Amino acid sequence: MSRKAGKLGRGVALVGAGMSKFGSFADKTTRDLFVEAYSAMVKTVDKGMETRDIQSIYVGNFSSDLFEGQGHIAPIMADWIGLVPKPATRVEAACASGGLALRQAVIAVASGLYDIVLASGTEKMTNLPTERVTDTLASASDILYEACCGFTFPGLYAAIASAYMDKYGATPEDFMRVGIKNHRNGALNPKAQFNSSIRDIMNARIEKAKQKGQPVPNWKEELDFLRDPQANPIVAWPMRLFDCSPITDGAACLLLVAEDLAQNFSSKPIYIIGSGHGSDHALHEREELTSINSARVAAQEAYAMAGVKPQDIQIAEVHDCFTIAELVASEDLGFFKPGEGYKATREGVTARDGAKPINTSGGLKAKGHPVGASGIGQVVEIWHQMRAEAGQRQVPGKDIRLALTHNVGATGGTCVVHIFNRR
Amino acid sequence: MSRKAGKLGRGVALVGAGMSKFGSFADKTTRDLFVEAYSAMVKTVDKGMETRDIQSIYVGNFSSDLFEGQGHIAPIMADWIGLVPKPATRVEAACASGGLALRQAVIAVASGLYDIVLASGTEKMTNLPTERVTDTLASASDILYEACCGFTFPGLYAAIASAYMDKYGATPEDFMRVGIKNHRNGALNPKAQFNSSIRDIMNARIEKAKQKGQPVPNWKEELDFLRDPQANPIVAWPMRLFDCSPITDGAACLLLVAEDLAQNFSSKPIYIIGSGHGSDHALHEREELTSINSARVAAQEAYAMAGVKPQDIQIAEVHDCFTIAELVASEDLGFFKPGEGYKATREGVTARDGAKPINTSGGLKAKGHPVGASGIGQVVEIWHQMRAEAGQRQVPGKDIRLALTHNVGATGGTCVVHIFNRR
Repeated sequence: MSRKAGKLGRGVALVGAGMSKFGSFADKTTRDLFVEAYSAMVKTVDKGMETRDIQSIYVGNFSSDLFEGQGHIAPIMADWIGLVPKPATRVEAACASGGLALRQAVIAVASGLYDIVLASGTEKMTNLPTERVTDTLASASDILYEACCGFTFPGLYAAIASAYMDKYGATPEDFMRVGIKNHRNGALNPKAQFNSSIRDIMNARIEKAKQKGQPVPNWKEELDFLRDPQANPIVAWPMRLFDCSPITDGAACLLLVAEDLAQNFSSKPIYIIGSGHGSDHALHEREELTSINSARVAAQEAYAMAGVKPQDIQIAEVHDCFTIAELVASEDLGFFKPGEGYKATREGVTARDGAKPINTSGGLKAKGHPVGASGIGQVVEIWHQMRAEAGQRQVPGKDIRLALTHNVGATGGTCVVHIFNRR
Repeated sequence: MSRKAGKLGRGVALVGAGMSKFGSFADKTTRDLFVEAYSAMVKTVDKGMETRDIQSIYVGNFSSDLFEGQGHIAPIMADWIGLVPKPATRVEAACASGGLALRQAVIAVASGLYDIVLASGTEKMTNLPTERVTDTLASASDILYEACCGFTFPGLYAAIASAYMDKYGATPEDFMRVGIKNHRNGALNPKAQFNSSIRDIMNARIEKAKQKGQPVPNWKEELDFLRDPQANPIVAWPMRLFDCSPITDGAACLLLVAEDLAQNFSSKPIYIIGSGHGSDHALHEREELTSINSARVAAQEAYAMAGVKPQDIQIAEVHDCFTIAELVASEDLGFFKPGEGYKATREGVTARDGAKPINTSGGLKAKGHPVGASGIGQVVEIWHQMRAEAGQRQVPGKDIRLALTHNVGATGGTCVVHIFNRR
């Protein structure tokens, strides 16, 4: 084919972004969380909007089918925020469902069919007991070749982590440092599921032991706490409890409009200048475990569309479903060379006040991981940071004009990358 | 808003269409059926294609999650036909998943991002026992207000059917006539699950009774057979066994390209000139049961985009998950006035040799209803009819230049309509 596709027919802007509180809400339904996220989004559209302006809705959701027994959720979400009879589309790509819903919404605006589209994501995971959540998530792996042999996601990412250690000389502490950093950020995020640092958690446990007259653990540093198998038990070696993102309920919403309408809705719109999407074989089929090819492909597409390079990106929200995943992401995105991601984390480069802040929201690790909502939730953080409205966790000393989100489904069967700028 | 969206950025053509056999295949996986459909599609691209030409794949699937325990199926389907690392997107809208995957693929080509896209659908339903299939399908209703009260889909459509009888004076025989017509068409479709007419089935039963020396039923006409509660038991009055579409395994694939590339792939491309999509409240919330508003909205959008009227449409594949659904569809699409659909069927207008042939493939009723694949399977029939390649079931005496597909999710939470022409 001589023809070359790969350019969007018109530009797309983000003019609103909001999320529900992420956490465990036994008293709320998916519908409640969705309405909460939508209402939070509406408040961010600073020049105002009406629900009737919205022409179409995309809903990212992994498996309300398995979590709640509810299929066909897009029209229900549309109904609960008053959008019926507008088109409502559910998009599924495991934990990348949200990011992929965003991409489809971007494509829909670019197509000319719609000017104003709601991109959203939602997941209600805590209705099931933990072991059934683990089984449900395992259905996003290849059930004929992976789940059937006993693989669950901690096990799959443990395989990636041990290969990474073997190949690059990283240690379990290098994974722990990702968790420490992300919890520090999450402690500053009022909507995070874990609104506390590892140090806070450690100190609280010490305090509790003292109050109960139990032996007081000899933890000085956060790493002492995380190395203690009582405090931080092994889930699937080398992944321990604090290497794993939690089970979370939550929803998030974004309002996208055709670029030339952006100023009608927002005094400070964010433009979506790059979008990339790739697929990969299931983990058991891959030649390499320490990099995810769908992420490289998606990043390449997004960078090419945006006309920017990895070093231009000022902040990123990446898919840290497990601590190892953030390290691999930071390399697949080209922020660091293969095998260098853990060193950068060790040196504080990815900290909030580092040269390349990653997961200032707390990431999936601390903010929470309602799988279908996570990819949209990432963009909510980018929105706040780029508008300098991130409060206590605002990245210091930077005027954020170029940011990136990276959302992975399963072990990388899907990856979606988006790049945002502010003019 | 002063701006008016609603036009696609560029035209989209269909240059290949194929499906697996529809039926019950205990020895096949979803992957097998998908490869079968893809291979069938490739053979129809008469100027040839390479798998590597395809830039993106959309997969319609209702709930592989619940049917097979496999989520995240789009990259797996992509992998099995050799598309990795290309973008793979699953779209879900219950029984309209296929039609909605087509719509997203159309939007994706129109956006300029891709020139060549595979639109597909798949469902493997027979792994579960029948009662669990019924429960699984019920998850596409509103579980908090419908399924929880014991409603299953035969019951929901029975509510529509009894309201229709009450309002318009239709009888159970009017529903049966839809089944008789669609089975007659299915008998001519080698890929149909039920490749036999009601008369064939009736005669076979009579023959069997004779051979076994049992009392021979006194059935002369097909309606005699269908009225007999032994032969055609009530499922949810007035819906009987032969008013319900079957449980089916199957997959279907379409190749879409940007309009200006169509002649590179096909000597006789079909153009997608209209696409419409609407949502509706769940059935319990509606003011009216005898019409589905999402279908009216979707039809209106598609007709406006195509610049044609209902009377211009020469043939249509509509969503006859139950016989009543075909009657309602034929009215929602504007082919007949409200309450006139059953009279048109009675008079043979919708028969293969009638003025407005509907479901020449056999429809979901006889061709089968692998829910996520059905919307794509409808287009496979349109492809064959418009190219005058439908063999024995080719509509007689018509040069088909304008056709329509209508695909409903659940009781109409989603409806997607497409209009096709040939130049």
